[in-house]
Amino acid sequence: MTEERLFSREIHLKQRPIGMPTENDFQLVRIEVPDLKDGEFLVRNIWMSVDPYMRGRMREIKSYISPFQIGNPLEGGCVGQIIKSNNNKFTVGDYVLGNLGWREYWISDGSGSDVTRIDPNMAPIQWYLGILGLTGLTAYMGILKIAQLIDNDNSTVFVSAAAGAVGSVACQIAKIKGAHVIGSTGSHEKVKWLLDQAGIDHAFNYKEIGETNISAEIGKSYPDGIDIYFDNVGGKHLEAAIDNMKTFGKIALCGMISQYNLTSIPTGPSNLFLAISNRLKLQGFIVRDHYDMLDEFHTDMSKWIGEGKMKWRETVIEGLENAPKAFLYLFKGENIGKMLVKIGF
Amino acid sequence: MTEERLFSREIHLKQRPIGMPTENDFQLVRIEVPDLKDGEFLVRNIWMSVDPYMRGRMREIKSYISPFQIGNPLEGGCVGQIIKSNNNKFTVGDYVLGNLGWREYWISDGSGSDVTRIDPNMAPIQWYLGILGLTGLTAYMGILKIAQLIDNDNSTVFVSAAAGAVGSVACQIAKIKGAHVIGSTGSHEKVKWLLDQAGIDHAFNYKEIGETNISAEIGKSYPDGIDIYFDNVGGKHLEAAIDNMKTFGKIALCGMISQYNLTSIPTGPSNLFLAISNRLKLQGFIVRDHYDMLDEFHTDMSKWIGEGKMKWRETVIEGLENAPKAFLYLFKGENIGKMLVKIGF
Repeated sequence: MTEERLFSREIHLKQRPIGMPTENDFQLVRIEVPDLKDGEFLVRNIWMSVDPYMRGRMREIKSYISPFQIGNPLEGGCVGQIIKSNNNKFTVGDYVLGNLGWREYWISDGSGSDVTRIDPNMAPIQWYLGILGLTGLTAYMGILKIAQLIDNDNSTVFVSAAAGAVGSVACQIAKIKGAHVIGSTGSHEKVKWLLDQAGIDHAFNYKEIGETNISAEIGKSYPDGIDIYFDNVGGKHLEAAIDNMKTFGKIALCGMISQYNLTSIPTGPSNLFLAISNRLKLQGFIVRDHYDMLDEFHTDMSKWIGEGKMKWRETVIEGLENAPKAFLYLFKGENIGKMLVKIGF
Repeated sequence: MTEERLFSREIHLKQRPIGMPTENDFQLVRIEVPDLKDGEFLVRNIWMSVDPYMRGRMREIKSYISPFQIGNPLEGGCVGQIIKSNNNKFTVGDYVLGNLGWREYWISDGSGSDVTRIDPNMAPIQWYLGILGLTGLTAYMGILKIAQLIDNDNSTVFVSAAAGAVGSVACQIAKIKGAHVIGSTGSHEKVKWLLDQAGIDHAFNYKEIGETNISAEIGKSYPDGIDIYFDNVGGKHLEAAIDNMKTFGKIALCGMISQYNLTSIPTGPSNLFLAISNRLKLQGFIVRDHYDMLDEFHTDMSKWIGEGKMKWRETVIEGLENAPKAFLYLFKGENIGKMLVKIGF
């Protein structure tokens, strides 16, 4: 009896996007899954994450992670189930969190920190890609460790892309810690969600007011300025925040989605001199430097979820073949909260 | 017998400069010095300091110190001698460091932190405006506290305006702490001074190589990047530094002399996204937040001077009436080291 051959569909990088990526930059490829070696196991992906940072890996530049290679599958956060195993630490039926998204099947020997067993009885498995995963941890460590928000403080906090996966969590952690929060987002519906569901104090639609009015909008809500800016957008948002920072304010540089698809040279903030006169600290960070906070994060976040203090939304796209479209949606602001692709069952 | 009337010459701000200041923005005014009240003393200024930060106070903008007022005398670091006193804590003959430069005489009641008695036997009195004063402290706390340079480290440090008053001290403190140092400056003579006298490892004339080549110049000396950038210049220097920062690099934002006289909106660094991917920290600072380091600074600096480890130069302009010219020289790079005006004897 010969074993049935198993095929996996994968999304490959067909060419490096110039400016805003298009579906033509991606290619759906069918490959045969190789046989398992000793110590390896086979995972069938169920969920995958698309995140703005992936745009950076599509460029051929030195960065904190190597660029994606043309003709190779993309990578990214995923959750799947083990369907075959030659590894006695990973059993068939186990659910695992990994970094080999953008494909239906993957093989691992379980070494390294990229594969973690998760408990489907604790939470819906896709939460480990969002609120309980690196997305949540990014918001948590960014606002608490980088921006150093103080508990029971009277701080004022500005968050851009505030209805996004990371932003919405950052907003709510700031609220839990007693801060006053203003958020920027890109639609009326998202403004409403931020005010009614996430419970922040002020929210505005930057597309409606125009980017040049962001600074005044923040000033209207907080005339004495803001203590913390959690930056997911960069560009004019960052400049507007710098305009409004209080003395000794802190800016956590998490992402700059406004810059990722530019074809011209970006223009940095024209008012950076204020960083001197107002003694500002701007600090960039990457979540993977801060895995030491995972336990603390899980404890706090589970508690907050249990207490009903944390609201979040998922935007789900069905089918691996639609993963490029889901990724493109991120830059069009078509997601509220975490953007996920359901690629299996 | 009537007391002789005493007149003081002062430099007033005649109008707010637009772009590069000119001598027409200043006015020499003769005023009568009022009688001393109880508790007051009269100081005859001997030295005054001109510093780039004063350009900021000539603008009408909210900043960490109030703007200079049109028709009023300018202010700034000065050293003088008490020639008359109704205050039993300050005696005629005492030398004092104050903040009422740009004039021949001033009156104080000695309250506040702006007036400090100095010892002319310890060091030439003008050193208290430079190497032993706020200039030295700025370099000291900027490189050690803000940029957190570690002793006996193998760090690589880039300093801009490296032959300037602050820059040259920052360079040498970094060398004393074991770092490798590259400095940018604006003339061949200054390059030579930095290499031969200040003893730094690499120096270049940015006017010769062109601002667009600063990044490559740093990369040539330190292909693995720099750990610390001490920024006195901003603009293209800051951008070039960001290009070359190592992961977790630190940028101490001390000044942005390239930006102070711009009449157009400044262009911020186009590569600020690297602050995220390389987890950079950019921090602005003002020396007067850090007076708690004065004792430690005086101890270290006196020791280094005693050991011959600290070289510095003073550029001296004679005469109060030439103070505006001295100030303008700062922006033309005509000073090496500390720019001082000798206004008395």
